[in-house]
Amino acid sequence: MIHKDSHTHHISQQFNAELEDVRSHLLEMGGLVEKQVNDSVTALIEADSGLAQRVREVDDRINQMERNIDEECLRILARRQPAASDLRLIISISKSVIDLERIGDEATKIARRAIQLCEEGESPRGYVEVRHIGDQVRNMVRDALDSFARFDAELALSVAQYDKVIDREYKTALRELATYMMEDPRSISRVLNVIWVLRSLERIGDHARNISELVIYLVRGTDVRHMGLKRMKEEVQGISASENANVPGNADDK
Amino acid sequence: MIHKDSHTHHISQQFNAELEDVRSHLLEMGGLVEKQVNDSVTALIEADSGLAQRVREVDDRINQMERNIDEECLRILARRQPAASDLRLIISISKSVIDLERIGDEATKIARRAIQLCEEGESPRGYVEVRHIGDQVRNMVRDALDSFARFDAELALSVAQYDKVIDREYKTALRELATYMMEDPRSISRVLNVIWVLRSLERIGDHARNISELVIYLVRGTDVRHMGLKRMKEEVQGISASENANVPGNADDK
Repeated sequence: MIHKDSHTHHISQQFNAELEDVRSHLLEMGGLVEKQVNDSVTALIEADSGLAQRVREVDDRINQMERNIDEECLRILARRQPAASDLRLIISISKSVIDLERIGDEATKIARRAIQLCEEGESPRGYVEVRHIGDQVRNMVRDALDSFARFDAELALSVAQYDKVIDREYKTALRELATYMMEDPRSISRVLNVIWVLRSLERIGDHARNISELVIYLVRGTDVRHMGLKRMKEEVQGISASENANVPGNADDK
Repeated sequence: MIHKDSHTHHISQQFNAELEDVRSHLLEMGGLVEKQVNDSVTALIEADSGLAQRVREVDDRINQMERNIDEECLRILARRQPAASDLRLIISISKSVIDLERIGDEATKIARRAIQLCEEGESPRGYVEVRHIGDQVRNMVRDALDSFARFDAELALSVAQYDKVIDREYKTALRELATYMMEDPRSISRVLNVIWVLRSLERIGDHARNISELVIYLVRGTDVRHMGLKRMKEEVQGISASENANVPGNADDK
């Protein structure tokens, strides 16, 4: 929607092409990052240290993609002096790229733990949770990117909402693993590795949420960070925030 | 230096004032964030749950500061169409603000753990390490901000270099705490809280390093992320990277 608007406004076809390019580069980077998340979790669960090693090697490519997209954004800012929705697009891309790169970092950390756990042999507790939470955060990353591709604020909202579910499951898993360590202290160092993996997954969910907030900003023009899910929903669905500003409990879901 | 240049180039006094304003707002936010780091660690060590509570309350102000600085940057981009070093300044500010906000988040997490640990009574192991690493990352944050205030790439480089020290000390502390949990399984849940605090401190160091890399980008015009410390040093000190590109071990400090 926003994109169609900007198309009609641009005199320069070249400018349109540049905006389209940088956006498609972001989505391409996103696709690779999503695959990294998936591969790192698979490497862990299936004790596939070769796959874990490949995840670590791909990280350089992701870093290079970040650099290239940054340069594209800078060039557009300097030469095209974008305004309004075009400027929001460039800002959203240049911030999303930071989150994507950090998701890539977390995937690399998971791959590193996978290699350690492969060497130690015998799969420890917590793998069911890793698989489960891993699948969910990967879906969050995919949906956040889809919402960017389609300028879909509703889908972006659902990603932000889902982050709550992840946080809850993460905490439950941590409690179980702490109990397990108490029962079997010899497992502590292995279980700690699993805890670090869960932590990385939880952070990947945070980054996906950040991206989805940038999509809402891009589509709706409103900065919805730190807003609480209830107000965010109102912003996305077009209900006046002031109508509901005094409803108790507006902030309690933050 | 860069700043003096831009002063002489600007026709508009008003534009100068706007750039100066947004930069001073960033430094002001940085000062508050640095205080948050210090207060959260003090609250933990001294079992001061009142102080921890105040840290949590200040976080909203930091979020608001982030929003305001973002708006200032957007306004300057849209109205002033900055180029060259001015554009780099705006980009560096709008990225640094993300790191500052996340440092604030980590301080809030530490404060939350402090409150939990206060309730549980009896100070567990690891507090010496928390104090020690906490002092060091606070200095990193301060130096990163000072390097921003003075456009000092050498100081920024030293912050990036120091991050290695933190990573090493963090790993050592983790190993000690894992051993301690094995020896005294009843302490596991308390020690896990201390581990989360150390993790937050280590991440604060990462964010300070990010800011210092943005300062080098601002002052030198080179993107030094993911570069390895050796090449970063060459960039800062003006040695041609190509002269040293084939020196073995260039990448091993990454």
